[in-house]
Amino acid sequence: MLEKIKDRVLKANLELPKRNLVVYTWGNVSEIDRETGLVVIKPSGVDYENMTAEDMVVVDLEGNVVEGKLRPSSDTPTHIELYKAFSEIGGIVHTHSHWATIWAQAGMSIPAMGTTHADYFYGEIPCTRPLKDDEILGSYEKETGKVIIETFKGKNPMHTPGVIVNDHGPFCWGKDGKDAVHNAVVLEEVASMAYHTIALNCKDKGADKILIDKHFLRKHGENAYYGQR
Amino acid sequence: MLEKIKDRVLKANLELPKRNLVVYTWGNVSEIDRETGLVVIKPSGVDYENMTAEDMVVVDLEGNVVEGKLRPSSDTPTHIELYKAFSEIGGIVHTHSHWATIWAQAGMSIPAMGTTHADYFYGEIPCTRPLKDDEILGSYEKETGKVIIETFKGKNPMHTPGVIVNDHGPFCWGKDGKDAVHNAVVLEEVASMAYHTIALNCKDKGADKILIDKHFLRKHGENAYYGQR
Amino acid sequence: MLEKIKDRVLKANLELPKRNLVVYTWGNVSEIDRETGLVVIKPSGVDYENMTAEDMVVVDLEGNVVEGKLRPSSDTPTHIELYKAFSEIGGIVHTHSHWATIWAQAGMSIPAMGTTHADYFYGEIPCTRPLKDDEILGSYEKETGKVIIETFKGKNPMHTPGVIVNDHGPFCWGKDGKDAVHNAVVLEEVASMAYHTIALNCKDKGADKILIDKHFLRKHGENAYYGQR
Amino acid sequence: MLEKIKDRVLKANLELPKRNLVVYTWGNVSEIDRETGLVVIKPSGVDYENMTAEDMVVVDLEGNVVEGKLRPSSDTPTHIELYKAFSEIGGIVHTHSHWATIWAQAGMSIPAMGTTHADYFYGEIPCTRPLKDDEILGSYEKETGKVIIETFKGKNPMHTPGVIVNDHGPFCWGKDGKDAVHNAVVLEEVASMAYHTIALNCKDKGADKILIDKHFLRKHGENAYYGQR
Repeated sequence: MLEKIKDRVLKANLELPKRNLVVYTWGNVSEIDRETGLVVIKPSGVDYENMTAEDMVVVDLEGNVVEGKLRPSSDTPTHIELYKAFSEIGGIVHTHSHWATIWAQAGMSIPAMGTTHADYFYGEIPCTRPLKDDEILGSYEKETGKVIIETFKGKNPMHTPGVIVNDHGPFCWGKDGKDAVHNAVVLEEVASMAYHTIALNCKDKGADKILIDKHFLRKHGENAYYGQR
Repeated sequence: MLEKIKDRVLKANLELPKRNLVVYTWGNVSEIDRETGLVVIKPSGVDYENMTAEDMVVVDLEGNVVEGKLRPSSDTPTHIELYKAFSEIGGIVHTHSHWATIWAQAGMSIPAMGTTHADYFYGEIPCTRPLKDDEILGSYEKETGKVIIETFKGKNPMHTPGVIVNDHGPFCWGKDGKDAVHNAVVLEEVASMAYHTIALNCKDKGADKILIDKHFLRKHGENAYYGQR
Repeated sequence: MLEKIKDRVLKANLELPKRNLVVYTWGNVSEIDRETGLVVIKPSGVDYENMTAEDMVVVDLEGNVVEGKLRPSSDTPTHIELYKAFSEIGGIVHTHSHWATIWAQAGMSIPAMGTTHADYFYGEIPCTRPLKDDEILGSYEKETGKVIIETFKGKNPMHTPGVIVNDHGPFCWGKDGKDAVHNAVVLEEVASMAYHTIALNCKDKGADKILIDKHFLRKHGENAYYGQR
Repeated sequence: MLEKIKDRVLKANLELPKRNLVVYTWGNVSEIDRETGLVVIKPSGVDYENMTAEDMVVVDLEGNVVEGKLRPSSDTPTHIELYKAFSEIGGIVHTHSHWATIWAQAGMSIPAMGTTHADYFYGEIPCTRPLKDDEILGSYEKETGKVIIETFKGKNPMHTPGVIVNDHGPFCWGKDGKDAVHNAVVLEEVASMAYHTIALNCKDKGADKILIDKHFLRKHGENAYYGQR
């Protein structure tokens, strides 16, 4: 079942080592089929080199394995929470990519320092609050999803397609798995640029709001004119 | 029309991912045919992998598309302003290359810290002032060109073949597209070196003026003796 | 003799340049055969490019060469001390990998700044005290092993499968040579992340103890649920 | 003439881009034939991709071209001064390699921060004083050689096979061109490690003198025991 989605999810997962977003097996991509409410996700702890589309695991929104011989990613409950809360998204990726994880470990949101950031993320990329002890000791991966949703209260997840989970690493999303990975590549690059911008000029408070708006809207707004029609 | 230039512009564009100056489609190269006043430029938002010489777009100096099925780069009006103001230049490149963009986001000019810089850029590589609100809200890309020209008032653009646009990224130029990209590679390297030099020795005010002159002139002056005749 | 182990030790050594952990010959991997008490180790100062399984040297736990035409790694006495003291380990690797060596030169233990670290190392990765003059002037490589063992007094070497030797570089270990190299790759990545986390947020004291426990135990504890059964 | 040396000098030059020590043509290697006193050196400003052994230029110790159709490297007079002053050396390399150049631009000697440095360079890698105005305006490249020699007064150039030229970049040497390039690769790595060690621990004054001696001597002294006999 869902063979096309499995194939897309495999390809999106393979993009992670190719784009240097993962060491070993430290990442996972999923996609949701909104019609059936089924999620296709990478199996847990399997090498990218030998992975096939058949290895992808199908789970329902309660986390039950519907198809697949392998265990799904241990982060599956986080993906499910996000699919339930953010109805527009079709794909999610989690990595421990270098620079995004550094911001996560520092417990800091990534400010919008220039147009590269604004072309993809509207305003800062927020960092979640630390999880409370009982959240960690309870359903940890599910609580990780819930703290992301809490962080996005009043925000549009399609305008800011990514988050930094405190002391952990980034989650990104998009209209499908490929789009989510694209946003993860961008997040990694703007995370590195923001880090070094602040080191170079510690008084820098980020780019002008009007410039940020201009760049986001020329690419994503109703009157966008970047790219082909 | 202009098939040879299209071919050169394609090749110069393909040099950008090869030299690690771009992520995805974040860059564009153009060349001008000074006889006809026509500019050949990369199309907007097209992947480098599948791009052909035929995809290059020909525009006139008013920005009208003269030939090509695709939209030209959204930065075309910036290129046009520079071609109109800097009569010696034959090619232009814009990227969001890592270290140059960090200086742009910090809003700082890159000082000449050593002979590597002086071999290509005479004195600091200037950072433009921030655009005013009405410039951003008006003809943004054209105003970007105008603020670069304002920054070069009294400077020779052939002696300093590049600029840092505030909170945005670098533009470089040269006698053709290939030469512009060469300068962009150098700018990226000296941007990184200057960043780390200042971090290592915060009191460093840059290299001696006489040393800077010596290196620039042994390569570019009338009595240059670097390279082959 | 021990042909299978020689083959594994060769492969683990070749992983070092592939994973960018070594420049030239700056690293060595060994494995122990616990039944015979013999250690198979890389020869000293031999290029990775031309190395064969036959070049691996077999030594006993007194450091005598039992088989092999080449001299064993000059660090062999350090490996031997560790095999004698840490009975659970089956493989050891020593490198001068970039970021781990920076922490070694700074004489600082690597704090657990996030879940990436906690997935593999339980708590900080300790840095040894500097060797005393007589230890350096005596059996230097053996004393290096002894100061590592001293550092692990009261610690479980399988929970923290690596160490930073003061002003020198890292040693890692695991159930075999491949596992040791895996841990060395992780140590290098978390060393870099910790460095930059502290630079970004100098007040950061590391990740929450309960979060650290959670991640270590979901992967390594009795009720681990990461990966496949 | 000197066909074997030309071949070696070509190979040593080609090692520079392979080891990421040069951008474009920013480097040159030479070797001297001590019997005839002739120096074989890379031509000036020629691409590495198309260079052949035939392109190497033969000059005498007065700087006259003895054989070759191309101009020798503009740094030839610096090489010649070093060959005349340091009688043990057989090969020289100059680059603008990233981290070594950062130390040069900062005008700082590279302290011996650990055993990686001590395995190859005995004590700090010195930075020359800035050239005086009349030295720059006079025989600039020859004066560069002379200030290096001045810096090594009382030092053994074979124990410290490299130098940082103020606001410029590194020169390294060795028993031949290949050995010089090997030392340049090591210098680049220890330059980067020292930079980051100081950033991590600003109070660090470098490694213990006895440890430095131990590592240098176990590899280079009379009783060296590193590597094969």
